[in-house]
Amino acid sequence: MHAYRTHTCAQLDTGNVGQTVRLAGWVHRVRDHGGVLFIDLRDHYGVTQVLCDPDSAVFAEVEKVRSEWCIRIDGEVKARDPSLINPKIPTGEIEVFIRDMEVLGRAQELPLMVFGDQEYPEETRLRYRYLDLRREEMQRNMTLRADVIASIRRRMWDIGFREYQTPIITASSPEGARDFLVPSRLHPGKFYALPQAPQQFKQLLMVSGFDKYFQIAPCFRDEDPRADRSPTDFYQLDMEMSFVTQDEVFATIQPVIEGVFEEFGNGRKVDRHWPQIAYRDAMLWYGTDKPDMRNHIKMQVVSAHFAGSGFKIFADLLEQEGTEVRAIPAPGGGSRKFCDRMNSFAQQQGLPGMGYIFWREGESGVEAAGPLAKNIGPERTEAIRQQLGLGKGDAAFFLGGRPKDFIGVAARARDVIGRELGHVDEDRYAFAWIVDFPIYEKDPETGEIDFEHNPFSMPQGGMDALEGDPLEVLGYQYDLTCNGYELVSGAIRNHKPEVMLKTFEIAGYSEEEVRRRFGGLYTAFHYGAPPHGGCAAGIDRIVMLLADEINIREVIPFPMNQRAEDLMMGAPSEPAAEQLMELGLRVVPKE
Amino acid sequence: MHAYRTHTCAQLDTGNVGQTVRLAGWVHRVRDHGGVLFIDLRDHYGVTQVLCDPDSAVFAEVEKVRSEWCIRIDGEVKARDPSLINPKIPTGEIEVFIRDMEVLGRAQELPLMVFGDQEYPEETRLRYRYLDLRREEMQRNMTLRADVIASIRRRMWDIGFREYQTPIITASSPEGARDFLVPSRLHPGKFYALPQAPQQFKQLLMVSGFDKYFQIAPCFRDEDPRADRSPTDFYQLDMEMSFVTQDEVFATIQPVIEGVFEEFGNGRKVDRHWPQIAYRDAMLWYGTDKPDMRNHIKMQVVSAHFAGSGFKIFADLLEQEGTEVRAIPAPGGGSRKFCDRMNSFAQQQGLPGMGYIFWREGESGVEAAGPLAKNIGPERTEAIRQQLGLGKGDAAFFLGGRPKDFIGVAARARDVIGRELGHVDEDRYAFAWIVDFPIYEKDPETGEIDFEHNPFSMPQGGMDALEGDPLEVLGYQYDLTCNGYELVSGAIRNHKPEVMLKTFEIAGYSEEEVRRRFGGLYTAFHYGAPPHGGCAAGIDRIVMLLADEINIREVIPFPMNQRAEDLMMGAPSEPAAEQLMELGLRVVPKE
Repeated sequence: MHAYRTHTCAQLDTGNVGQTVRLAGWVHRVRDHGGVLFIDLRDHYGVTQVLCDPDSAVFAEVEKVRSEWCIRIDGEVKARDPSLINPKIPTGEIEVFIRDMEVLGRAQELPLMVFGDQEYPEETRLRYRYLDLRREEMQRNMTLRADVIASIRRRMWDIGFREYQTPIITASSPEGARDFLVPSRLHPGKFYALPQAPQQFKQLLMVSGFDKYFQIAPCFRDEDPRADRSPTDFYQLDMEMSFVTQDEVFATIQPVIEGVFEEFGNGRKVDRHWPQIAYRDAMLWYGTDKPDMRNHIKMQVVSAHFAGSGFKIFADLLEQEGTEVRAIPAPGGGSRKFCDRMNSFAQQQGLPGMGYIFWREGESGVEAAGPLAKNIGPERTEAIRQQLGLGKGDAAFFLGGRPKDFIGVAARARDVIGRELGHVDEDRYAFAWIVDFPIYEKDPETGEIDFEHNPFSMPQGGMDALEGDPLEVLGYQYDLTCNGYELVSGAIRNHKPEVMLKTFEIAGYSEEEVRRRFGGLYTAFHYGAPPHGGCAAGIDRIVMLLADEINIREVIPFPMNQRAEDLMMGAPSEPAAEQLMELGLRVVPKE
Repeated sequence: MHAYRTHTCAQLDTGNVGQTVRLAGWVHRVRDHGGVLFIDLRDHYGVTQVLCDPDSAVFAEVEKVRSEWCIRIDGEVKARDPSLINPKIPTGEIEVFIRDMEVLGRAQELPLMVFGDQEYPEETRLRYRYLDLRREEMQRNMTLRADVIASIRRRMWDIGFREYQTPIITASSPEGARDFLVPSRLHPGKFYALPQAPQQFKQLLMVSGFDKYFQIAPCFRDEDPRADRSPTDFYQLDMEMSFVTQDEVFATIQPVIEGVFEEFGNGRKVDRHWPQIAYRDAMLWYGTDKPDMRNHIKMQVVSAHFAGSGFKIFADLLEQEGTEVRAIPAPGGGSRKFCDRMNSFAQQQGLPGMGYIFWREGESGVEAAGPLAKNIGPERTEAIRQQLGLGKGDAAFFLGGRPKDFIGVAARARDVIGRELGHVDEDRYAFAWIVDFPIYEKDPETGEIDFEHNPFSMPQGGMDALEGDPLEVLGYQYDLTCNGYELVSGAIRNHKPEVMLKTFEIAGYSEEEVRRRFGGLYTAFHYGAPPHGGCAAGIDRIVMLLADEINIREVIPFPMNQRAEDLMMGAPSEPAAEQLMELGLRVVPKE
């Protein structure tokens, strides 16, 4: 007989009745029913009920067993009494009478129960992650994660991509975040960097002629932690193709992502139509470049109706340059109670409030209500209603000022309005490509021109476009939003060295600086670079969306805590003096 | 029409004759045949011959094109004249007449030719890796690498393993090599480490109940570079299983590795029988724990025949404790010329030489020859011949002293003898499991007991065995050798905390030290740890064996050079002063 098991804890059924079997697993739960001990024995695959009565030679041993002990039992499979059948589990028709038992691993008193739904502080869960991971939901999340990644891989191979590994200990790859550095022992005082993304290497693979690359790539950014971000390493589906246009990248990746969401979305609807929305439209309509497309509410500029109106706050404000009034339509939100709640929401978010109008049944049909309506009068109010296409029972909210000052709140208000009024179908994945990102942005304080996204994108219109106003230059650069999360980001790359140089020059980089910071890629482009482009999709985020989790640590086996520590393994820790000496480093004492 | 190509450079055949097509790729070679320009246009998939005659509107443009320019052409597919058909390539029956051309990426003068077989210094190849990688052999090696890894993954999934990612920025995992450290910005003065292997995390996954884990895992060891080792990151197929014995791990991994070697071995024979050889036997028979099993030569101890013999050097030497004389049989090596050459080989390797006897046709049958035979006389010589099972035309070489002083040379001599005498079938992959490694070794200088391999293996005989002589304790610990390379290494783990503690105590570690260095794992073992074991296989080495390369840099897309530098990307480099400040570090000035 096998040393540990003849079957897993999910395998036995009535076909095995009468057999002597061996099982191994963890004691999920022990119950004592009139002197007979019932144990739910659990392994990765399932649970089998095993039991021991006082006649058994090992009863005294079995009595000592506690939750989460790892044991091996031998026993006889018997059919359960029909009244005791558990149809919820595959082994629910049988039970195993224990004849022999061996304790494989004892457990101390548990800081965290595996059985049951008790909640524990995150610190406890991470410190005893091996217990936390035994819980059903965590087993499910981690297997989901593994299955999603395997499916992505298979889908990429199926469409002709190969996976190539790019270096992990390498040079700095400026992607806008901070690098993790790795001191070099062979070159004391010098440092490697961990890649923020394999950006330059995947482009070099294209220059090397590999045509279609992908990688489930570990990426490293030394960022301050937050719930939906890992403070150290995270994974991307990174891909790149040669000889392609932007639409071809979309047509390539869409079926992969659609397929994964359909395969693992648990029956939720997966939108087939992925609209392309210009960045500027997205900012106007949704106040964000990662709108939740399940929510159909679109903002509109309604400045004209307030200019010179009786609502002095907006009228005065519109006298200043760069200001506007934007409306958030709220179909079905036409009650004072709802409008007041949204006004409070805006105040909580740090604005003075949100003006509103709502429409209700009046004496002569639809009637506008609320203080704002009174201030601007019926004509303007009606014009607004018509522009927004609203009617009885609807409302609209208004935000005025410089867009950058209210747009964040506007976007969040749109989310809340959409959810509260039932415009968001939770059982659906809705996608949109956000396209035509500007290449540059102006620093509001210094007035200097800098890159808006990563600096490797091809400007639309090429060299000619770069001769004009930099702030008007759009890039072949795109994001994919899914239910309000940025899932994918990518671009057609700037593969022409002279265009690359000009692009950097506008952002204030000399050729020498370009050579110093991006010399590998820049030099490579002088040796027959193909047009190429691609994208990267956040794996952890895809799994979060599929597992319906909002904390990234629920879908990573061994995550750091929010202070970027692993308390279970003791990282980070003080280095040994010899280690520092070998690296030629000294720790600066704290002040 | 597509912006860049309607077909790849491997797609067109006689079925396309008459069509207007668009191709994109690199100018592999240009030839001028009587004013007509013939271009071999190359992409990742293949080569197509395109041509341009002076009548073409773009002839003047095409004339400017040079090797490795990236171009797009439009043209008409025509059948080649039967006399010009090239049966070696799929597109060999057609050619494309250029009607239009666009230069996508110009190339400067090339530091390295893609076409042809010219060899270049490694520094040139790595600095211009994107050109080097365009060469046919490198394209083949990298796609082989990708295909091998995909095949391994598929095979692991097929037998019920799931791939889980373990942390890359984490705590030190003492595997015997040096860690790469990563300074923490949020905790200045503290450091993370990159994992030498996911050893502790894969064991924690077993304690977490995941049953069957694998990962194509990046591993990091700050080791001094050599040809078959990457100085920074390298990849392992890392796997672990719960509730298994050593034989089960073998039975699980053998079909995976056999399958991969059969799939990609290019018809070479893949041995199905993988013998299990005890470490001590391997050291005795082959002088190494990674013997080349294609070579059947087995060494033997022949001390008895030399003790008190007329060959004073050995006779005197055998008076000293711990010495022996070992014979390397050399079937077919029975000529003075060969024996002298091997003697010189031993001298080159730093030994005084290798004694030998060879057997030839004499007056009365087989006759022993060589100075050694004369010294010890015919009786002893004959006894040696009989022990070694040799005959006419064979030879034997002799090494005496303390095994550790000659064993390295003995192993290399066995290799050379085997190869030179034709005992090594180059078209074959031969495997053996080396088992029963000792847990401990004695430091020859200090006499202290330390771990021989990694400290996490289960000692055979458990706690009882640890009560006896530590140097006699064997572990459930194993390596797989393939053609003389260590391909796999693994163990059944020590999952019992009290046995683990005792194991460390013998090597001089207190419980406090165990808690400090391996606290995560040690604590986890107190909460119901299952018996588990597994192994790790070197991916880069598997690909090297399959690609028939002896330099690891031939199978890695972007390797470091032998000084652990990436000259193309400029790594490592001096950090910015702000970076060091954020990390709380100072570089110690060089003396």
